[in-house]
Amino acid sequence: MNKIYNPKPETWSILLERPTKTVDDIEATVKEIFKEVQKKGDEAITKYTSLFDGVAVANLEVTAEEINEAIASIPQELQDAIQLAKSNIEKFHTAQKTTRVSVETTPGVACWQEKRPIQKIGLYIPGGTAPLFSTVLMLAVPANIAGCKEIVLCSPPDKKGKINPAILYAAQLCGVTKILKVGGIQAIAGLTFGTAAIPKVYKIFGPGNQFVTVAKQLATQFGVAIDMPAGPSELLVVADDTAVPAFVASDLLSQAEHGTDSQVILVSTSKELIDTVETEIQTQLEVLPRKAIATKAIENSKLIYVENDQIALDLIDEYGPEHFIICAKNEDFYVNNIGNAGSVFIGNYTPESAGDYASGTNHTLPTNGYAKNYSGVNLDSFLKSMTFQKITAEGIQNIGPAIELMAEAEGLQAHKNAVTLRLKDLKI
Amino acid sequence: MNKIYNPKPETWSILLERPTKTVDDIEATVKEIFKEVQKKGDEAITKYTSLFDGVAVANLEVTAEEINEAIASIPQELQDAIQLAKSNIEKFHTAQKTTRVSVETTPGVACWQEKRPIQKIGLYIPGGTAPLFSTVLMLAVPANIAGCKEIVLCSPPDKKGKINPAILYAAQLCGVTKILKVGGIQAIAGLTFGTAAIPKVYKIFGPGNQFVTVAKQLATQFGVAIDMPAGPSELLVVADDTAVPAFVASDLLSQAEHGTDSQVILVSTSKELIDTVETEIQTQLEVLPRKAIATKAIENSKLIYVENDQIALDLIDEYGPEHFIICAKNEDFYVNNIGNAGSVFIGNYTPESAGDYASGTNHTLPTNGYAKNYSGVNLDSFLKSMTFQKITAEGIQNIGPAIELMAEAEGLQAHKNAVTLRLKDLKI
Repeated sequence: MNKIYNPKPETWSILLERPTKTVDDIEATVKEIFKEVQKKGDEAITKYTSLFDGVAVANLEVTAEEINEAIASIPQELQDAIQLAKSNIEKFHTAQKTTRVSVETTPGVACWQEKRPIQKIGLYIPGGTAPLFSTVLMLAVPANIAGCKEIVLCSPPDKKGKINPAILYAAQLCGVTKILKVGGIQAIAGLTFGTAAIPKVYKIFGPGNQFVTVAKQLATQFGVAIDMPAGPSELLVVADDTAVPAFVASDLLSQAEHGTDSQVILVSTSKELIDTVETEIQTQLEVLPRKAIATKAIENSKLIYVENDQIALDLIDEYGPEHFIICAKNEDFYVNNIGNAGSVFIGNYTPESAGDYASGTNHTLPTNGYAKNYSGVNLDSFLKSMTFQKITAEGIQNIGPAIELMAEAEGLQAHKNAVTLRLKDLKI
Repeated sequence: MNKIYNPKPETWSILLERPTKTVDDIEATVKEIFKEVQKKGDEAITKYTSLFDGVAVANLEVTAEEINEAIASIPQELQDAIQLAKSNIEKFHTAQKTTRVSVETTPGVACWQEKRPIQKIGLYIPGGTAPLFSTVLMLAVPANIAGCKEIVLCSPPDKKGKINPAILYAAQLCGVTKILKVGGIQAIAGLTFGTAAIPKVYKIFGPGNQFVTVAKQLATQFGVAIDMPAGPSELLVVADDTAVPAFVASDLLSQAEHGTDSQVILVSTSKELIDTVETEIQTQLEVLPRKAIATKAIENSKLIYVENDQIALDLIDEYGPEHFIICAKNEDFYVNNIGNAGSVFIGNYTPESAGDYASGTNHTLPTNGYAKNYSGVNLDSFLKSMTFQKITAEGIQNIGPAIELMAEAEGLQAHKNAVTLRLKDLKI
């Protein structure tokens, strides 16, 4: 592991650099599939499902029977666990509801802001060996609270033409309105253009591999919004002598097992803690089923010693971690002053996996430095804010002259006229 | 003008189609300038300012002296008008502040959401004949309320190397922290990469021509966020027999004068109103200074007759107008049920220009159908939402077993371990 002592601020940006992705070679493939789906619809969808997933799917939509089968196959204790997680996510996202903001800015000028749901949304859930049913909860629960009318879930079929039962269970539990057996680039293209089987949606959410990521970026060029730009997952832990080294090591490893490109950083004001955590990581790593992946990620990890909390905070704020764990005496200092982080985990009993599954916060978070300018997925991600204004005769007389002056100064005479006509009418 | 009677729903999408833009030929230029600014910094900035603005600017930053000169040159009555507008915008956007959302989702599991400012932002204000100082108010006022630390404004210099005084006046009034004489692609590139004179920012706001629009899109590929995708401005008016035809015509024209590609649509349940508005437009058009532009936009406008309010609403919702004026008896029906619109103007005394300048609502709005999936600029555009969680020993015992089950079912053993270790520790 790389241990760095007292790095100078001018070296931070290089020290904290994220792995760069090359997407150029993928882009051509993605564009080609988009073009074909736009032109040929479900014919292209079926073709690429055959090609990439190795299965011919006659009917894209999951049937009620398949959903019932899936429910029956999920052990009761896992069902209970999912329901507990759902309940917590629901509580936290329901609390995010806002009411109409209403102000009379000038007598006779009533302005208000209201949030209304994005009517049609698509959720992408990857398939494969790790079925991310937890992501179904994180996206479908707030979508439902927001009141989205159409919630379309796409997930790739396995070789038997089935979607993982835990994904189906979570989807029906959280009010997904349509579940489709389609994955990869072709799923994103389908949601972008619409086909006979796949509804066109206004916003696409959810994680995916490089192909899905590039496809989501391309979708934005066709008027579709996406949740946020994607990048490899990352965790930064700040810990001092009050932290439990075994816990810190376990958190770093839980991040490391995501992928070989995962970012894992420990910042500490204690050299001793850094050394103990390093030893703990080696011990815990040995028994992990995803040891190969975690080892690779850990090799690129950084253990950084700094002299005090202020330097630690400045460095962390420059990085802007997706996940930020605080195990330090001065936890309030970090909590109150961190400016850039996706989700923050405080204290020795708050592992990142709590937020990944069941605490109630969302796990779809800005990575790759986007914590500086993007929110994680929250209730507002499924709403858009609209403004309204209603002006009375008195109101337009109060603000009309100002509008006329400003419009004239900007050289927009017709803007002025729209007010002048009304003011004249009121003088008669 | 195009009058359409009772269009069938299956023709709506073609009827309401927006003009398509071709950006391919611009993209190469934009990419080249980005590359050069990234490599050569201010040397490239100076070069392109010479080339595009025809002026050599020695010092990019506007001085205190220049600002004082600008203030002195603005007539008192325009200053008063700008201050009235600022005060209304301030009231409406201050009311949008939210407080921390805090929930104990399970005993011992405290979750909260807080919004923190995007620390560094850039505002782009076009120069030229129509100096959009109103846009300075619309962007800098909420940025200040949000608490953004660095608010950098870029606007192109004129042939004398100056920025329009009304823009400077508004900028100093609204707490912009740095004003730079740089415009076009090179300004956006500068804000994206940072140069000696231009700070790198996290999010760029503001309107611009095609070059600026493409440059903002490209900026997003380098980790910078933007306010929203851009398109030609548009207005849809729904009006019935209770509307004043002259007012409706003046509103349609105020939109039409923006540009030849502006979208202007009237939807009405009254054939008579459509005819009267058509005549009124011709009369008012004659005396407009920007007659040539408005005439072209009006040629492409659409006057659509439909049989009742429900059909009108469905059609409008499919279009998703940036600006939506309601002059109809059943105004509440439209207000309560419109799902997709940027800003809504209600009643005969609420012209669009009120919202453009002084009612208090923001005029930076989603166009081109983006009202379906994007909010207009509001206080939240300058903030990002972060989540926090703090779990006690009791809390992790309450939700830990559910996390272990879910992590295991997703094949993520290290995620499970992070909880198992803590639960074991608590059992000792």
